[in-house]
Amino acid sequence: MRIAELSSRSGVPVPTIKYYLREGLLPSGEVTSPNQARYADSHVFRLRLVRVLLDAGGLSIAEIGRLLAELDRPDPDVPAALSETVRPGPSAPPPADPRIRAAAATTVGELIGRRGWDVDPENPAWRAATDLVVALRQVGLDADVDALDAYARAAEGSVEADRRLAPIANRHAGSACHHAVAAILGDGLLAALRRLADQGRTRAC
Amino acid sequence: MRIAELSSRSGVPVPTIKYYLREGLLPSGEVTSPNQARYADSHVFRLRLVRVLLDAGGLSIAEIGRLLAELDRPDPDVPAALSETVRPGPSAPPPADPRIRAAAATTVGELIGRRGWDVDPENPAWRAATDLVVALRQVGLDADVDALDAYARAAEGSVEADRRLAPIANRHAGSACHHAVAAILGDGLLAALRRLADQGRTRAC
Repeated sequence: MRIAELSSRSGVPVPTIKYYLREGLLPSGEVTSPNQARYADSHVFRLRLVRVLLDAGGLSIAEIGRLLAELDRPDPDVPAALSETVRPGPSAPPPADPRIRAAAATTVGELIGRRGWDVDPENPAWRAATDLVVALRQVGLDADVDALDAYARAAEGSVEADRRLAPIANRHAGSACHHAVAAILGDGLLAALRRLADQGRTRAC
Repeated sequence: MRIAELSSRSGVPVPTIKYYLREGLLPSGEVTSPNQARYADSHVFRLRLVRVLLDAGGLSIAEIGRLLAELDRPDPDVPAALSETVRPGPSAPPPADPRIRAAAATTVGELIGRRGWDVDPENPAWRAATDLVVALRQVGLDADVDALDAYARAAEGSVEADRRLAPIANRHAGSACHHAVAAILGDGLLAALRRLADQGRTRAC
């Protein structure tokens, strides 16, 4: 199909498609003449994937580009790629007393040890978790062993939920793609259900 | 203290403090002359709160303004205010087949019923959860009863974790403030721990 049909089938405007092509989010079509290219059904799916990660997943174009680049590799490291999408990003470490930061790093390291998680020490999610423990402390809340264990159990349970999402027959998305999408949209689904559980249980008291 | 000292004690530049004053994120100081005002320790804490919600919590200035306005009321409805911070926001509903949207709405409604959550039908998190089930389907994943129940159990467990965060003696933050901060930073902490659990358990397979 031509770019006009790709646009009408995906609902993505032509200039936006051209922007995604320039940014490498969408692979080039098959060039049929110097000014024309032909696109396939896989491009329609890819555009849908980009829009879902952007609108429903809340990722930036740059984050989507990096994630898709990893998914396009022959043997993608999905957990490592996903860890690049955590908040707070590396640009915004909360300013803090070095002793508070060191104590938070120890607390998170011990948690990872207790859970038996075999994680890369360079995993950005490790630093993000430490930053969040520091941030909580800065506004008057202490994440002690008891609270962190409760979050970790919920995290494990929700990762299990990500894996229970059932693939619908789709020849454009492999297991790595499903893994990544489940993790990103699972974050949002979990956050929405947290709000509902919070209201539902607050009222019940 | 004068605005210069408020800036040095909070680490927030004076022009940014003035911006927060204009946006209503920071209450006015006590006016001491036509061009000067005096600020209190409560302003230092409030600036720290704004920065933590912005940098570590990932909220926008507009979202922080609405949340703090509710927290400043005599009897704030914290769960309702928190529900305004969910992603995807109302501006970005994924375009979808009305039957898929209707099926997703039913699935989420049934989940809320099974959990016994007494929630407001207008709670934006309800719509956000439906949007995410639709988005998952658009990229080839079906959130069935089994998966949704697993997410809901994790959501309940993590809301319990929010409540286990121990308040550190602080006369500037009441229970409503702690509730809100725990929910917002808890989302991030949970997402970071999800990435660590994902990597830790993928490797273990």
